[in-house]
Order: sequence, then structure tokens, then C-alpha cells
Amino acid sequence: MFFQRIKTPGLAHNAYLLGDKQEAVLVDPRRDVEEYLTLARENDLIIKYVIETHRQEDFVIGSKEIAEKTGAKIVSLDHALFGHSDIRLKDRETLTAGGLTFKALHTPGHTPESTSYAVFLKDIPDHAWGVLTGDTLFIGETGRTDLTDPKKTREHAGVLFDAVHEKIAPLGDQTLLWPAHGSGSVCGGNIAERDESTLGLERTCNPVFTKDRAAFIEAKLRERIPRPPYFSRMERLNLQGGIPVAKKPDGIPMLPAKKFASEIKQGIVLDGREPEAFAGGHIPGSYSVWLEGMAIFGGWLANQTTPVYLVLDSMDQLETAVLSLARLGVDNIQGALAGGFAAWRDAGQPLAYSGTVAPRELADARDKFIVLDVRDDTEFEDEGHIADARHLYVGYSEEHLGRIKDDLDRKATIAVVCSVGHRAGLAASILRRNGYHNVKNLLGGMTAWTKLELPTTKGSDHSVTTPDIEGKRE
Amino acid sequence: MFFQRIKTPGLAHNAYLLGDKQEAVLVDPRRDVEEYLTLARENDLIIKYVIETHRQEDFVIGSKEIAEKTGAKIVSLDHALFGHSDIRLKDRETLTAGGLTFKALHTPGHTPESTSYAVFLKDIPDHAWGVLTGDTLFIGETGRTDLTDPKKTREHAGVLFDAVHEKIAPLGDQTLLWPAHGSGSVCGGNIAERDESTLGLERTCNPVFTKDRAAFIEAKLRERIPRPPYFSRMERLNLQGGIPVAKKPDGIPMLPAKKFASEIKQGIVLDGREPEAFAGGHIPGSYSVWLEGMAIFGGWLANQTTPVYLVLDSMDQLETAVLSLARLGVDNIQGALAGGFAAWRDAGQPLAYSGTVAPRELADARDKFIVLDVRDDTEFEDEGHIADARHLYVGYSEEHLGRIKDDLDRKATIAVVCSVGHRAGLAASILRRNGYHNVKNLLGGMTAWTKLELPTTKGSDHSVTTPDIEGKRE
Amino acid sequence: MFFQRIKTPGLAHNAYLLGDKQEAVLVDPRRDVEEYLTLARENDLIIKYVIETHRQEDFVIGSKEIAEKTGAKIVSLDHALFGHSDIRLKDRETLTAGGLTFKALHTPGHTPESTSYAVFLKDIPDHAWGVLTGDTLFIGETGRTDLTDPKKTREHAGVLFDAVHEKIAPLGDQTLLWPAHGSGSVCGGNIAERDESTLGLERTCNPVFTKDRAAFIEAKLRERIPRPPYFSRMERLNLQGGIPVAKKPDGIPMLPAKKFASEIKQGIVLDGREPEAFAGGHIPGSYSVWLEGMAIFGGWLANQTTPVYLVLDSMDQLETAVLSLARLGVDNIQGALAGGFAAWRDAGQPLAYSGTVAPRELADARDKFIVLDVRDDTEFEDEGHIADARHLYVGYSEEHLGRIKDDLDRKATIAVVCSVGHRAGLAASILRRNGYHNVKNLLGGMTAWTKLELPTTKGSDHSVTTPDIEGKRE
Amino acid sequence: MFFQRIKTPGLAHNAYLLGDKQEAVLVDPRRDVEEYLTLARENDLIIKYVIETHRQEDFVIGSKEIAEKTGAKIVSLDHALFGHSDIRLKDRETLTAGGLTFKALHTPGHTPESTSYAVFLKDIPDHAWGVLTGDTLFIGETGRTDLTDPKKTREHAGVLFDAVHEKIAPLGDQTLLWPAHGSGSVCGGNIAERDESTLGLERTCNPVFTKDRAAFIEAKLRERIPRPPYFSRMERLNLQGGIPVAKKPDGIPMLPAKKFASEIKQGIVLDGREPEAFAGGHIPGSYSVWLEGMAIFGGWLANQTTPVYLVLDSMDQLETAVLSLARLGVDNIQGALAGGFAAWRDAGQPLAYSGTVAPRELADARDKFIVLDVRDDTEFEDEGHIADARHLYVGYSEEHLGRIKDDLDRKATIAVVCSVGHRAGLAASILRRNGYHNVKNLLGGMTAWTKLELPTTKGSDHSVTTPDIEGKRE
Repeated sequence: MFFQRIKTPGLAHNAYLLGDKQEAVLVDPRRDVEEYLTLARENDLIIKYVIETHRQEDFVIGSKEIAEKTGAKIVSLDHALFGHSDIRLKDRETLTAGGLTFKALHTPGHTPESTSYAVFLKDIPDHAWGVLTGDTLFIGETGRTDLTDPKKTREHAGVLFDAVHEKIAPLGDQTLLWPAHGSGSVCGGNIAERDESTLGLERTCNPVFTKDRAAFIEAKLRERIPRPPYFSRMERLNLQGGIPVAKKPDGIPMLPAKKFASEIKQGIVLDGREPEAFAGGHIPGSYSVWLEGMAIFGGWLANQTTPVYLVLDSMDQLETAVLSLARLGVDNIQGALAGGFAAWRDAGQPLAYSGTVAPRELADARDKFIVLDVRDDTEFEDEGHIADARHLYVGYSEEHLGRIKDDLDRKATIAVVCSVGHRAGLAASILRRNGYHNVKNLLGGMTAWTKLELPTTKGSDHSVTTPDIEGKRE
Repeated sequence: MFFQRIKTPGLAHNAYLLGDKQEAVLVDPRRDVEEYLTLARENDLIIKYVIETHRQEDFVIGSKEIAEKTGAKIVSLDHALFGHSDIRLKDRETLTAGGLTFKALHTPGHTPESTSYAVFLKDIPDHAWGVLTGDTLFIGETGRTDLTDPKKTREHAGVLFDAVHEKIAPLGDQTLLWPAHGSGSVCGGNIAERDESTLGLERTCNPVFTKDRAAFIEAKLRERIPRPPYFSRMERLNLQGGIPVAKKPDGIPMLPAKKFASEIKQGIVLDGREPEAFAGGHIPGSYSVWLEGMAIFGGWLANQTTPVYLVLDSMDQLETAVLSLARLGVDNIQGALAGGFAAWRDAGQPLAYSGTVAPRELADARDKFIVLDVRDDTEFEDEGHIADARHLYVGYSEEHLGRIKDDLDRKATIAVVCSVGHRAGLAASILRRNGYHNVKNLLGGMTAWTKLELPTTKGSDHSVTTPDIEGKRE
Repeated sequence: MFFQRIKTPGLAHNAYLLGDKQEAVLVDPRRDVEEYLTLARENDLIIKYVIETHRQEDFVIGSKEIAEKTGAKIVSLDHALFGHSDIRLKDRETLTAGGLTFKALHTPGHTPESTSYAVFLKDIPDHAWGVLTGDTLFIGETGRTDLTDPKKTREHAGVLFDAVHEKIAPLGDQTLLWPAHGSGSVCGGNIAERDESTLGLERTCNPVFTKDRAAFIEAKLRERIPRPPYFSRMERLNLQGGIPVAKKPDGIPMLPAKKFASEIKQGIVLDGREPEAFAGGHIPGSYSVWLEGMAIFGGWLANQTTPVYLVLDSMDQLETAVLSLARLGVDNIQGALAGGFAAWRDAGQPLAYSGTVAPRELADARDKFIVLDVRDDTEFEDEGHIADARHLYVGYSEEHLGRIKDDLDRKATIAVVCSVGHRAGLAASILRRNGYHNVKNLLGGMTAWTKLELPTTKGSDHSVTTPDIEGKRE
Repeated sequence: MFFQRIKTPGLAHNAYLLGDKQEAVLVDPRRDVEEYLTLARENDLIIKYVIETHRQEDFVIGSKEIAEKTGAKIVSLDHALFGHSDIRLKDRETLTAGGLTFKALHTPGHTPESTSYAVFLKDIPDHAWGVLTGDTLFIGETGRTDLTDPKKTREHAGVLFDAVHEKIAPLGDQTLLWPAHGSGSVCGGNIAERDESTLGLERTCNPVFTKDRAAFIEAKLRERIPRPPYFSRMERLNLQGGIPVAKKPDGIPMLPAKKFASEIKQGIVLDGREPEAFAGGHIPGSYSVWLEGMAIFGGWLANQTTPVYLVLDSMDQLETAVLSLARLGVDNIQGALAGGFAAWRDAGQPLAYSGTVAPRELADARDKFIVLDVRDDTEFEDEGHIADARHLYVGYSEEHLGRIKDDLDRKATIAVVCSVGHRAGLAASILRRNGYHNVKNLLGGMTAWTKLELPTTKGSDHSVTTPDIEGKRE
């Protein structure tokens, strides 16, 4: 018997490989599939089926490539939003691999085609072992219900509530819970940090169980999660089973500093170093997208055709950077700076710096700073922010900076704030690209600010909120 | 929130590392502790406590070394069989690390001091997240109850039944189950192959729940699991928190073939290659203990002072071999054959071979063979064996070979049988050491035999059974 | 300054990566290029040129793929046998990368286009640092001169002698020697085992220097090295710069035992385990090609269209096996046995065994055996063999077995002999495929036989020699 | 035949493992010996001898530990400064391992006991294959001659010149050169960047060959290389064969930010991040010693008893940091910041920042800066520096800062300069610890400055030179 959750950092995504007697089922694979294939092979498993719980919107899937390489069949619900499955199950229909039985349960709400799969063991046929819930039921949370049409969030929230109660809950408290995402995903608001749970445990803590239907719907209506611009692109690609990675790390040209300097004018530069390092020195005009941030903000800053140039600490980070971008369909990586940032520095190429500021220092000289908070709406409003802070979510900041232009255009230094300093670093780099040079990153962000018990306030004053902004769609 | 099961192959042992907000708890660490320390470190966790569920008997523990290296406190029940803990909890007493609370539950039966620990999350204080059950409750099984005194098995089985029902079951169906062993352990008879379960699921399938008290006790009385001779030694070492690994792989001398040949006369040779390779050629007098088998049979063949010499396929297996033996307290490794078996072969040193036989071939010429089945009693009697097979568990075969001497001393070839061929290979090597040279290993064992639908029988005829044999104790 | 020899085991091939100030030159890359690209990247090097010393015949090259992935230019002599180079140098023309200068020296003899490259450092422009000699000058040996036309060996040997003396020797004693092959290559007869040498050292020991022109030519005429059938295929592919690997390990289907059993009838089975393991049990009809042997004998047994099925010890050997075959252009790998040989064994599938015999045992019962020596002609004749041994090189044995049929068709057991037991294992598997079932592999081979000081003889009696056999060409 | 150079980055140290027929010789092992033992083992080699070329002063050796673990004998010249060798060779005496012969050649000058070993192959007994020259003859350089007594540099330079000419040169141009250090070592002034050379090549470029005796001695007298304070400590330890690593990475406690903050008052903090990251934010009072810099500057800042606390980017750098320090005898590592710098930042602990400045920016506002160049004397004087720069070698800056106090104590910003920015970062951190807070690190250093063709000058004005400073000895 084989069970393994394969996590994709950055995306906070979970794929699952389940196997018995050499037969295996792979659930919700991401675009770069080597890890799955190696895992199966070295555990003497043959992938018989690739199950898709839904048409993923936050990353490109790898179902089709796996099917081609292994002969596995792609399995989905029989629904129009799965465009490329070999086996199309009806609701409550089953399929088996080794001694494992997978039962399809149509559980719409997050998306119309969303399906959960209850998993049964041969020896215990009457009680579910676990349930693969895709983006329907997370640990401590449910999938967002604003995706297909924000105006129908109310309706979808009700549909999701009913699906969870009618299809999933009856499986029983003993059932292990295996969702497609963990904490940090853009597909749910407040997913718990642990990866292990059961339906019984969720019954005691998950809002879909602790609230009644009406209260649950109201809570979903209040939910405001940023909508990355790459969602619709992913959906298009995934309707056909995804596509193989366009350019493996080996295919990315290494560019010397001088060549890099001349080429980057035709594209954008993503700097994968930590925010302190970026603050200490960087290529003028580059974006500060730390390595793990590539997996989300790479898709906000670039699409499949944007010419992208990479700056890293060292070249052993290239694989992570390139695959993180590939998962978002960012395929046009034109090159990486050979030798990393040090090569640029030592070549005497132009440098820029942005500063940093410590929480205590900001608190002590509060009046010398304009504070710009770039966390998302929920974090800003519910978790507390610095009084008089301006607010604009980092993902929208390049596009909507104009909205807070008057606030920022004073002689004061801008202190950019997020939870610890990564997104603030990105926002600082965006501000600098837009002509604001007196910008500092609050190191430690609201995490440090709160630990020091510095004063905060709640609410939505000074906020450019998400409902106000129509997420750009391609 | 961090949760990870760290498996030790061969021992089928599970340690657990749980952490939250940089504070971690390590449960039931084995003797070689580097993997745990690295895992904690690279996940930014500080080990605050080492919890021992019971005084392990099947491997040497590493609690004391971890405490010394990290400053962690060793935690146990306040019971005399824990000789070296810093924090001694009363039954139902708790301790916390980060947002995790661990509640001690005295659950004797397997051993008198056996303790389970229910784990609670800060956000869900009233319902257990999981339970660490040590050797009390396994997945699909319970711990053996014959250890401390085989004559009191009945009494201990009752005690264990009550502990599970009174202390563990009330935690609720939602509770995740985290035992100290998985399938293949010598601490339980028939542990399920999967690693994931919940109390709710166990309620539907585990004999401790599906049988009533009397029937459960009867079943435990019928249980006959071999008792390795190293158990009492481990207990003595573990009473004091275990001891560090005596000799790391780097400290094992590499011996050239000629020197190896002269030194091995003073000790025993363990050959870690697969049974087919051993059958094809080996050092006369060596034991065929395949690499994973070192973790169990190393302890049957050697104790802490036996001079041991190792023969491997290649030197990158040395670490596995040496640590597998170290976990059983086998510390006196005198050397490894430099260059592996190939070096011996190419040096023209003396060679021996034992043959192999395929199931169909044995079936077709059944009368030309004496069949010796070396699986344990339960496998032999309950899972079916070849008609007229003699039976003697491999672990006892060197010591008790005399008992079946008359059966074997005929001119026929001896076909040695186990489940697939590993233990049969070991038994074949033991037979050869004892003067039986016409010995063949049934490749594929009863697994292949059964797949071919060749005839089997059940019962205990021709068997030298365990109750008959007093497991040697040191 | 960067210098690294990248060895390919099995092929005994050396590629070289030389770099300075971020600019690098890669010399003679093999077909699977990832290792080179990663090495360059992680050392902050940009591959500017790929130099080919000659049109390799013993493996498929990767020049074209590297050029496509990195933008590097392919460099060669301006000669018709280089069909695809971007920069075509005249004899004695130079090119530079960083502070390194490469000077082309036309050194024919092994092949007409063979070129050496003297390497000069910027600071020492008048004395060669090293020389890349391709297959012209090896350490202790020269390239074979029988390749393009065995009848012109005499002429080519003279050409090679002159090239070494006129072009390479004048570089001076201080020059480091960097050839394309080391000991074990099929491109030279008796290459020394060390990898480090200088022209000065070669002057004292290499036959091209220690013999005069006439004696050297005579020695080359006596040289008889087997000619693998894949040479001409490699040459065709390499004329165009090689082709990328057709199917990466991830693309090889894993087949369960039953499916494997039914599919293998359409192709050949290569078993990558050690000879003792093969002797102890194997799939009937399979070839015993140990893992490292794939890199040479894979090309004797299969061509680019032969359906190949793989049996391995474990799946972490798959990459080595698949790439070893790919380097020989063996591209039609239809699948690997999932779970390795153990899965076949445990499934009760049919098994065959061949036996082994120890040197002393063979010597003591010499008259009960027919000895078949399968080493190459030179080994058989010059290094000594067992008296009355029959001889047929393993590579020719399947095709030319008929020639020694009468010798073998007696009731005696055939003892197959090579240097240690690998090639003998392959020959034993070939004999068994051809109806000879009473076959044993002499473990330790002539290496062990000689160490035991058992009697040997020299000469070519009972030998089916290479000059007799026209190597098959595709 | 086995030959491998094992480099230790940071120390720029080379050990060598040479082997033949399973017998190996290890030359000049460093303190942490696992890499050597694993390398030998996995290549089927048994270390028979450990050769010491001299009593190393720049790192702790591991000879004794290897001897204890493998049974190898320690070999040296029969000289009082080798205190712990098992085999003490006379000048020109030999010893063999496999087919390799090592001939001791007493070559004093760097130190009195310095010995070179010529290596001969069995097949070529009359011509040296290579020569292990320790610190006597480097590639492009010779060992420093000021160590034992700076006043006798003249005498020692002559002794070294004679030793090279009388003992090493006669081995012949063909001889491969295998010295104990490469470029970057503190044991020689201007070692070439390549690792491959021959005596013939050195004859054309190495000052010991291109200059006559008198000119060579004059050049050595002009050589001024900093003398690290740990040299005498290393010598003491190495006289007895070195000592095992005191505390492996696993033994270093992980400290949470709060505990780290309270403990560091009793010791020093070494920050292993890159200089830009340090500049962007760091723990007040910490030293900026980048990861590779630990291998040298760790020994300037701490001795064997200094309580050391480590700050790293991530915990997978811990092993490098701890071993780098251990090699310098820095053994009292009290802890590492769990979670790296991010944990400190997010805990709201106090932060400091130092700034950076780009070359063009410094050039454009030259009058607003005091420039402090912290490279060594030779770099400052011979390679060109910024006009009016003050000079004080980084290693001496904490101790001798008072000497340039008047120069620095003006209102201007101090721009600290080295070759690229690492040593300048360390000096900036030292300046900040000493009350100078207006400090910036010139990113790219003189490397970038020169590439931009900004003006430089040469000579020793404003320099606090080494001859002036008596290196502190313990």
C-alpha cells in the first residue's frame, strides 16, 4: 500500500500518489511531472490512472504528458469542463486500482465541474479510508466561490455548502481528508497550516460545518481574495490536459552581464534574491520576486509571451525559478544572468538600492513616513494595520498605482509593509520603477510590528479594495 | 505546523516529528539520530521534547544523544521502566510545544509502562487531532502481549484491551492514528500495510474493536510471533535512554580479500546481497542476510560482541548495513570486504554456491525434494504451505536444526521455502554451514507458488513451533 | 580558470570543459548533455564553443543539442567528415575563449579528419598548457588504425605516427595530455589506466615514441580489436552533429511481470544484474548484460530499432541503463520490468538458471569441462589462457557460434571464461539461448585463475579470430 | 589507477588521494575527514598511508583520525617538526603502495621540515609521474618564506630556491605538479588560478625559475602577505597529527531569536550572508563574514575558545560554516539562529543596516567620501587603488583601527573598498562595531571600478602596512 502527498511549494499545491499491488493512481499532477514519475518508478508502481478533481486555474497541469509517457488513462467526471479525459465517470461511479476503489462525487461550488473522490480499501469496503476533495473542502476552509462569476458568489457558496454536506460529510468522521491545496494557496482564503485532518476534525472547526448555510454564505460573500490574471490562461490550457514544460532549465541561455544589460530592455527582470539583498543592491528596473514568490507573482508580472530575464543568488536556484514560472505558463524565459547578481556587481554595471527600515524605527519616526500596506484586503482589514496606512494589494500595485498617487506624492519616505517583507520588497521595486525612489521596506513587516506590540488599527480606510478592482483577465 | 513520520525500513519503525512555531517534539527516536536532527534544523524547528511511548525492545533508542546535542528534555510516563527521563508525566498529564498539547495516557498491555499520547491543536482544544500509540495500537493490529512473560499473555491481552477501550477509543473517530510500527515489525503480528488511519477506521476493522474482550484475548493467545534474542539487550540499553552509535560507517576498516579471508575465522560473515546473487556464488560459511534483512536477522545472528564481517554488492550500501546492525546493538563490526564480493571473486578466493529452484520445477519433481519451510508459525499454519513440508522458523534454525535432523538426513535435495526467497536464502546458508550441501532456495517462495495456484495445505504438522522453543535471552 | 574531465563510464570516454572569465569550451560531448550544461551553469560558465576532435564512431555525440540550447558554435577542422560545424578551422588556425587559445592540429591516422587541439594560456603564450588529442594519442597507446578500411591499416598507422611526431610532439614535454578515451575504450587497444599524463611522460613509455616508425606500424598491424557493429551507425548520426536522446528514463513504460512476459516475445531482454545474480535465476532467453556492460554490449545486441526490454536490480538503475544504450543509438526501449527481477520471481513466472564454477574447481575437474574463452583475440593470445580452451569473442558469439558447434556439442559442461566473469556471463546467456544448457560461468575468470597460479598457455590454437570475422556493418 | 585532487574551498587547499590495486595514499588531509574516507571506500581503496608534506599552519589536519579509523600509517620526513608520524623517511627514501612509489625529497624554505614527494609508476620507474610539493612549489608561485621568522626571510628564500632547483627541477619537464594549495591561499602570494601544471610549464613562468637566485630572493623580501593569528595554534595541533572535529553540525544547538538575542552578548556573531544582504539588514554588532569567508576570517575573529554564534541564510549552510570554522580550530560554536536571519527579522528584534555605493556614484561624488581600502598590501600597492584612499588590511582593522582614527573621524561617509565587496563588508561591520555608522560598502570593489576605467593610482601612501604590524600570535 502506497500513499504520498507531493507538495509544490509556492503554489501550496498537493498532488497524491496512491498505489497498491504495483497499480497506482496519481491525482492532480502539476505541469512538471518528473518527480511523480520517479516516485512511482522507485516504488515499483505503474501509474494506471491520472485523476483530475477539477480544471485547475492556478497552475498548468501535467495529466496529458503523464498519460503519454506511461500509458495511464486520464479520469474525470463526465462534464464539459474536462476536455480531455479518457475515462469519464458519472457521479457516484467507481474505478479501481489494486485494492483501492475511487468513487467520484460531484461537488460543485468552487467550480461547476469540481469532483471529490472517496477512497475505499478492499478490506474495509463500507467505510471511506480518505477523500480527495480538490478545491472543494480544504483543511479549515472551503474553496473560493467567486471564480467563475463574482456576481454569483452567493449562489455558488450555497451549492458548495450543499455538496459538502450531502456528498462528503456522509462519508463519516473517520475519513482522512486529502485536499488539493494547503495554507498559502490563492484558491482559498484561510486554509489551516497543518496537512493532516479528518472529516471528524473538520466537523468541529471548519466554517462549512460550524456555521449554518446562511451564515456560511454570508462569510463567503465577505471573502475577498485577489484574483491573479493568469487564472483564465491556466483554465484554457488545462481544458486540454495541460502541456509539457516548454523550456527545461537546461534550455535557458546563460548571459554574461554585458549581454544581459543590453537584452533586458526588451523584457522584464525578475530578481529571486531575498528582500534584504535586493534592498542592498539590484539592477535598476528589476522586480524583487524572491525565489518562492516566483510561484505566484511570476504570473502577476508576466504571461506566456513576456520576455523574462532572471537574476538569482546562484545557478542552483535556476531549476526552482524556471519550474515555478512554468507552472504558471510563463514560458518565454530569455536568459539568466550567468554568475548571478555577483557577476553584475563585479562588472561595474549600474546599481540601484532601496532601503529598509525596522519596526521600532518606523514607530519612533512615524510622521516622517507614508506607510503603504500591500497585503491583501482581508489581511489589511481583519488582522490589523498601522494607523493611517494606505492600502493597495501588491498584485494590483503596478496597474493601479495611479489611484493612490496623490497620497504618495509627498516628500516623505514611503515605508512599504506586508506580513514579513517579501511582498513589500516587490511593491518597493514596483514603486521604484514608477518613479518613487524614496522607498523603504519594513523588515519583519506586521509580524514583527505585532510581536513588538506596536499599535494597530482595523478596517478599510485608505484602502483600494479588490471589489473595486476588476482583476485583469487575458 | 509541521508533521512528519520518519520510517526506518527493516525495523518497520515510525518516529514522529511534530512542530509548531519553531518548537518541536520528537517521538520514539532510533539510535542513529542524524536524520532527525537534520530534518528539524532544515525546517527551522528546535527539538524541545523527546517523547518515549515505551521502553523499546526491538531497537536501541537515541533519546539521550538527542537530549545532549539539542538540550531537549526527555519525556515519559512516571514509571520505573523509564529509567532516564527528565520530565515524568502522570497519567492524563499534559505538556505543550508551540500550539500543540500532548496528553499522556497510560496504556499498558504490550508492556507495563506503555503510554499513548493524544495530540491537541490550540484551535481545536476539545477534540484530539491524533494519537501516538507506540506499540499499543497499530493499524489493523495491537502490540504483542507475550513479551514480558509469555505465561501472562492472557492477563496482558485483557489489560491492553481495556486500555485501548478506556483511554484511546474515547478520543473519537476523527483522531489520526500514529503508531510506532508499521507492517513488517516484530512487535505485532499482522499490522496493515497502509500508514494512514484514524480511530474511526480502526473501529471498523481492528480486532481490538471488532472482537469482544474474550474473543480478543483468545486471539492474542493464539498469536505466535518469534521472539528475537536481542530484545532483552535492547531493553537494558533503553532503560538509560539508549547509547550513541559506537562506530559510524567511516570507522569500519576496509579489508582486502586476502586479509578478510584470514580474519573472518574469528567471527561471522554477513552477506548483504540478494538471494539469487548469494546462490550464484558466495564465501564459504557466510550467512545470506540481504541488505534489508540486516535490520532484523543481524540481531539473531550476532550480539554486541560478536565479531562481524560484511560482504556487500558495493560500498555505498555500507551505511545502511552498519546502521541497521547498530540499531540492534550489533556494534563489533570488524571490517567490510573492500570492493565488495567482486573483489573476493576476482582474487581467486574459495567460493561456494547454493542452488535455486522455481516453483513449477519443484512441483513437477516434488518427490526428489525435502521441503523445509522457514516462515514463522502463523505464516506456516494459517497462510498455507506445501504438503509434507518440514517447518522450522529461520530465526531458530541454527540453534534447533538438530530437532529436524532425521527428517533432513536423506539423500534428497532440500528445497528451502519462505514467502519470496530472502529468509529461505538465510536458512539455506545456515544449512550449508551445518553440513547440508544439497540445498536449493525456492525462488519466489509461497508468493509465487500461490500465484501459480499450486496446491497447499494448512495446519501444524511437521512443525517445530515457537511455544516449543524458548527464545534465547541474553 | 576552469578545467574538468567529464568521464563516461562504460564508454571510457572523456569530454572536457575548459573555461576562463565566464567563457567555456566543451570538447567532444556525448549524446546526453545535461551533466555538461549543469556543470557549466553552476560554475558560472557560458559555453561559447563545442569542439569536436573527430567524428566519433563509438557513441552518439551531443554537439548539436548543446549548440541549440546555449547558442554555442560548433567548431571543427574544415574537413568533409565534419558535416555540421559552424566554425571550420584550417590546420594550425586558432580560436580563443577567455584567456585560452585553442590551436587546431590536423592529426589523421585513426580517422582522416582527426584533429588535436593545443591549448595555450594567455600568460604563457609560447608553451602549450595541454593538448586535446581525441583518439589520436591516448595515454600509453594510440588510436586504432583499422577503422576506415582494415586493408589500409599499414598506411594509416604510418600517417598516425607522422602526425604524432610532427604535430603533437613538438608541443614539448611539459604539455598535459587530454585524450578522448581512457582504459577500457573500444577505440584503442591497451590504454593505460591512469588519466593523468604529459607528452614528456609519453615519450618514455608510449609505443608511438618508444618504437621506430617501422616497428610501430608492425605493432599496429598485429593489433586486433573487435569492431562493434554500431560504429557505422554512430558515424552517420555524428556527421550531422548527433541527435538528442530519443526517450529519457521518464519515458520508459514500467511493465508488470505478466505484461512484460507477453511483450518480450517481440524483442530482446537485457538483464543488468551482476553475473552471480543472473546465474542464480533469470528470465529464460534473456541476455546477461551487467549494468556497466550496457554501454558496449547493448550496441552489439541491439540497434536503433530492436525492441529492447530491461530487467534491473532496482529502478534507480534505469537512468544509467537507458542513457548507456542511448549513447549507442539504441533507442527503441519498449519497457522495464516494474519492480525489477524480484517482481518476476515473486509472480511465479518461469525461471532459468545457469551455474557458476570456481577456478580451483575447474582446475581439479578439468576433463569434465569444455572451456570456452570469450575474451578478445589479444587477451586470449597474449595474456594467457587455459590449455585446450576454445576461443570466440563474446561479441561474435551469437553470430558465429556455428563455427565451434562441433567442439561444444559434447556431453561435457561448458565453462565460459573471460577476465572476471561479466562477459562470460553474457556468453553463457547466449549459449543458453542457442540450446546449450549445461553451461557454467567461471567466477573470477582469468584474473582469479592467474592469481591462483593455475597453468596457462599462450597462442591462437582453437581460436576463431577477428581477422577471420568481418564485423557486421549496418 | 586512481588519482583525485580533493579541494577545500575557502582554504584553497588540495588534498590528494592516489591509489592502485586497492592500496591508497592520502596526502595532507584536513581536519574533517569524512569526504576522504567515503571517496576511498566507494572506489574500493584502502588507505595504507597518510603522507604529510609539512606541518600545516593554515588549517588543522586529520591525519591522526584517519590513522585511527583505517589503520593507515602516518608518513613524514624524519624531522622534529613532525611529532606524530609512524613512518619517518630519510631524504630520498621511498615507500610504495600498489604500483606507486613515493620518494621523499626534503625541500625546506617555506618551513624547515617541508618535504616534496616524487611519485613514480611501476611501468615507468625512471621518470617521475608527478610531484607532491606541499607549500614549497605552487603553480606560478612558491610558498611564503616569512613564516618561521620574518627576519630570516632572505635566508629562507635562498633555501627554498635551492631546494626547488636541486630536488624538484631534476625530476624533469614531464612531471605533473601537485601542490597543497591553489589560488586564494594564505600560504602563497600570487598562486595561479589553474590547478593543472607540469614542471616544464613552471620552468617558463614561475618566478623561482624565471628569476635568478638573487632576484628571486629580492622578490620574496618584497612579498607582504598577512599573517593570520591562528597560524601558531594550528602548528601546535598539527605537531600531534591534528584532532578530530570537536562538534559536528548536528551538535550545534539551534536557538530561537529571543534566546539568541540574550546569549550573543557573551560571544561574537558571525553572519554568513552575502554583503548586499548584510547591508540591507543585520543584527547589531554582528560581523559580516560571508559563507566562504568563514574559512579564513573566522580564524581572524575567533580562536578555539571564543563563543561563536552563527547567522545564516538557511540551515543547509550550517555544515559548511561549522566545518570551515573547525578547520581553523574555532571549536566553541555556541549556537545558530534557528530559521536564519528571517527568524530574527520577523521576531521584531533590533536591526541595523549599512549602506552600499556603486563605483560610478562614488566617483561622481568622490569628495563626499573617505575611501578606506581593506585589501592586503600587495593588492593595494601593486594593483592600483583609488587616489587618496586610506589603507588598512581587513584582518588588522579591528585591532589597529586607532591608527587611522584621525583620518576617519570626519563627518564624511566612509566608503570601504576591497576587490569585489566581501572583505569590505566585513570591514564595514567592524567599523560599525567601533562607532562609525556612516559606512558604505563599494559594491563590485576595485574589480568593477577598474572595468569602468575609473582612475587609480599605485604605491603605499596612506597605508598602514603589514611590516608595521606584528601579526598577533597566540
